[in-house]
Amino acid sequence: MKCRRCREQAVIDVRRHNAAFCGPCFLHHCREQVRRAIDDFEMIRPGERVLVAVSGGKDSLGLWDLLRELGYDADGLYVGLGIGDYSDTSGRHAREFAHERGMKLIEVDLPTDHGFDIPDGSRAAHRAPCSACGLSKRHVFNETALAHGYDVLATGHNLDDEAAVLFGNVLHWETGYLGRQHPVLPATPGFARKVKPLIRLGERELAAYCVLRGIDYVVEECPMATGNRHLGYKEALNAIEERSPGTKASFLFGFLERGHHRFAGDAVDEREALRACSRCGAPTPGDARGGDALCAFCRLRARATGSGHR
Amino acid sequence: MKCRRCREQAVIDVRRHNAAFCGPCFLHHCREQVRRAIDDFEMIRPGERVLVAVSGGKDSLGLWDLLRELGYDADGLYVGLGIGDYSDTSGRHAREFAHERGMKLIEVDLPTDHGFDIPDGSRAAHRAPCSACGLSKRHVFNETALAHGYDVLATGHNLDDEAAVLFGNVLHWETGYLGRQHPVLPATPGFARKVKPLIRLGERELAAYCVLRGIDYVVEECPMATGNRHLGYKEALNAIEERSPGTKASFLFGFLERGHHRFAGDAVDEREALRACSRCGAPTPGDARGGDALCAFCRLRARATGSGHR
Repeated sequence: MKCRRCREQAVIDVRRHNAAFCGPCFLHHCREQVRRAIDDFEMIRPGERVLVAVSGGKDSLGLWDLLRELGYDADGLYVGLGIGDYSDTSGRHAREFAHERGMKLIEVDLPTDHGFDIPDGSRAAHRAPCSACGLSKRHVFNETALAHGYDVLATGHNLDDEAAVLFGNVLHWETGYLGRQHPVLPATPGFARKVKPLIRLGERELAAYCVLRGIDYVVEECPMATGNRHLGYKEALNAIEERSPGTKASFLFGFLERGHHRFAGDAVDEREALRACSRCGAPTPGDARGGDALCAFCRLRARATGSGHR
Repeated sequence: MKCRRCREQAVIDVRRHNAAFCGPCFLHHCREQVRRAIDDFEMIRPGERVLVAVSGGKDSLGLWDLLRELGYDADGLYVGLGIGDYSDTSGRHAREFAHERGMKLIEVDLPTDHGFDIPDGSRAAHRAPCSACGLSKRHVFNETALAHGYDVLATGHNLDDEAAVLFGNVLHWETGYLGRQHPVLPATPGFARKVKPLIRLGERELAAYCVLRGIDYVVEECPMATGNRHLGYKEALNAIEERSPGTKASFLFGFLERGHHRFAGDAVDEREALRACSRCGAPTPGDARGGDALCAFCRLRARATGSGHR
């Protein structure tokens, strides 16, 4: 197996591209895929300040490294979720990565700063852990990016993640989510611009990138995610990708080319119906039962900390 | 396990509906699902003559039986595909079913009437067997329905079939196919109305229906379909349905409610670009390379019978 680019001995193949690469050319390939994603979707303009949401895993640390390699001014944000050993380990990886490279890492800790952790919060609010965690991270990411004046918030969602999310959204024809599923969500009042520069790279490529770059990341999956629906969607798509390499990429990019615009209006309708959370000021569709509009994060926090509905 | 309807001992459960039924109530359930599909989508009007495309399998024989039980004036159409023992067996089941019930079965035999069979045709035209077979059946179904003056052509596509086709169409964002994927395709010049009255019933329900009704159907799958993509899509959806019963139905019906209309224009665009096949007169997008427009079936037949491109 020869490297497609330099014809030396290859160390990794990428079936989707029907290509193999040696170490240095594989790193070049990864940078090119990120560069191309950023350019194609106009994710980041020159000179902008980027905040990278890092979990300590391969995707987010790989993304932070790739953005710095490509010359972007990128700091990190780690959110402590209070999920026992998993959070301890992942936080340590994020801190060590930043420290070794002299890079700035902002930290927000849910238990310390907001008085609850994901296990307790999800129980108290009767929400699935992944749902409570996702809404908390989105809230803290956005709030922190705005508070520190970053131009853009970057997350490490890769091709496999995005294809699985898309699959879940079409399985249930969640038209609002489909309208919002895009690698760039422009800034709107109360929301920072959000970008996903890894959408052209798969999980396996990110793992190989980190190994080749000597990035020490947390390997375990979150223990609370075991058996969730999203993993079922990933498995289903993996089985199809195994038979027909490239299907995931054509599913995601075909949607962006020929599907997304048909749903964009549904997301705009939802956005226009937002009002400000009466506690934190974040935009929210509010409580369907009327009354003061508390955003989902403030409702979760109120239930988790026993501070009533306010 | 008690029957949901009469509280007697149940013989079959339908997880999607979180229900179980005794034999007679299960047959009632199947008829109600077909009646509801026909009503909801205005598939067949009172007094119309229906042509049912029958393969000798559980779905199409079950459909024919169900339509007669519901009081429709329905004849059958069997198309011989020349696929060795499989075609011999399936044709025998279709004939015996019709004969035992004194029902009219029209037969068209590809080798006898058109000079080729599916194995030779697909080889000669360099098409996958399922592709050559599908286009041949669609052509003969439509031509026969029009020639005999039927108001509507009914096919035995069930919920599992339609969900798998939808999955393939969204995986590749085939926008024209998505625009045409509907349980009713109205009659247009050169096309009979096409309906799919089984979309509310799954494969397992059809098999149970035939067993309970004493319908003797061909059990083997077509030997040429082994390993095709469509079966891979079915397996992927089955794994998800197993974890979350009802997902397939919500995928298909959610599309019909909230997705389909967004793609309908693409199908209309394609339909308006049709012209008449210069040989058989059927509507066709024609040959992209220009020249006389031969429909896909006439092109396949010409290649398979060695009669040149004409």
